[in-house]
Amino acid sequence: MTNSRMQQQIDFLIELDRAKNIYRNSYLTAVPRRKENDGEHMWHISVMAIVLQEYSPQEIDINRVLRMLLVHDVVEIDAGDVSVYARQNDKGLAERESAAAKRIFGILPDGQGSELKGLWEEFVAAQTPEAKFARAVDRLMPLLLNYYTQGNTWQDLKVHYQQVLESNRRTLEAVPALWEYARQILEESLQKGYIKKI
Amino acid sequence: MTNSRMQQQIDFLIELDRAKNIYRNSYLTAVPRRKENDGEHMWHISVMAIVLQEYSPQEIDINRVLRMLLVHDVVEIDAGDVSVYARQNDKGLAERESAAAKRIFGILPDGQGSELKGLWEEFVAAQTPEAKFARAVDRLMPLLLNYYTQGNTWQDLKVHYQQVLESNRRTLEAVPALWEYARQILEESLQKGYIKKI
Repeated sequence: MTNSRMQQQIDFLIELDRAKNIYRNSYLTAVPRRKENDGEHMWHISVMAIVLQEYSPQEIDINRVLRMLLVHDVVEIDAGDVSVYARQNDKGLAERESAAAKRIFGILPDGQGSELKGLWEEFVAAQTPEAKFARAVDRLMPLLLNYYTQGNTWQDLKVHYQQVLESNRRTLEAVPALWEYARQILEESLQKGYIKKI
Repeated sequence: MTNSRMQQQIDFLIELDRAKNIYRNSYLTAVPRRKENDGEHMWHISVMAIVLQEYSPQEIDINRVLRMLLVHDVVEIDAGDVSVYARQNDKGLAERESAAAKRIFGILPDGQGSELKGLWEEFVAAQTPEAKFARAVDRLMPLLLNYYTQGNTWQDLKVHYQQVLESNRRTLEAVPALWEYARQILEESLQKGYIKKI
């Protein structure tokens, strides 16, 4: 192609096609296939951020949140999807994700690649209001999909109520209305037998 | 749930899970499964809009473009996916899509539902700079996926070079750099035998 800048951008977009093959632990609510993939997940939580942005306790730049969410899991093309419950036991994960970010965002023209890689780093660092809100919706969606599919993922991963509560507390507490909602669905999941107490 | 406004919002998000089961005509480039679905498509072209925004000939509000693209195909949950080549022969389509928009965006709280429905209507009307740019990336991605999968979809739909060129011309000409790129990949597809001349 004649325009090499545009070709780098197209190459990046074609590389991202692979995210449609990274299957997650969350089950789908209305689909005969079992589990969702990263492409679907990044779309779904981006819409979630649009719809639930009013619950952020701080002013947020929703455009920044959307750009962050739309690329936050592309590192999993190389590094794979690891559940929040398994992350702390996966010692090489941060390094694998870092190498993946370098390779994948590196496909883009220089300034543009580093900008998107910066958004991914901001998401991981969890310090800005935008990153905190983005991380909260990223945690709420799997809880919801789990609740609407009778706790399938919790049973697969053999996690119990207290573990789910504690693993999600810090991230979701940053957006109190979402944390309140998450606690309610966890409580109901316990009562309905979707998840075990201990 | 105690907060009925939030419950309406969650209901909308869960309804959208069904978009992950609306399969499109485009083949996937790097996935053992054959075709992509609407959830994946809305994510992929949203990232495309971020990456290619510099080619818009007019100033655009990228936040508006992203919100538009993230919901532009949810009507297909009810109305189904119809290829650009079949749309003009599907007399009931506009009506089915309109009814779908009313039902699906209607799940949201009043003001929020009409805002997102308005974005979908803006996309369909194709008048604003944001809608024109959004529509151009929505057309470019299927051409790309087709090129990178040796023209599978063109062969399935039995469309030839001239038809693809004319069906996409008006939408893609709105963003000249993307139209130029699209014409190049179509030309190469012709030379490589991915698509027939007539």
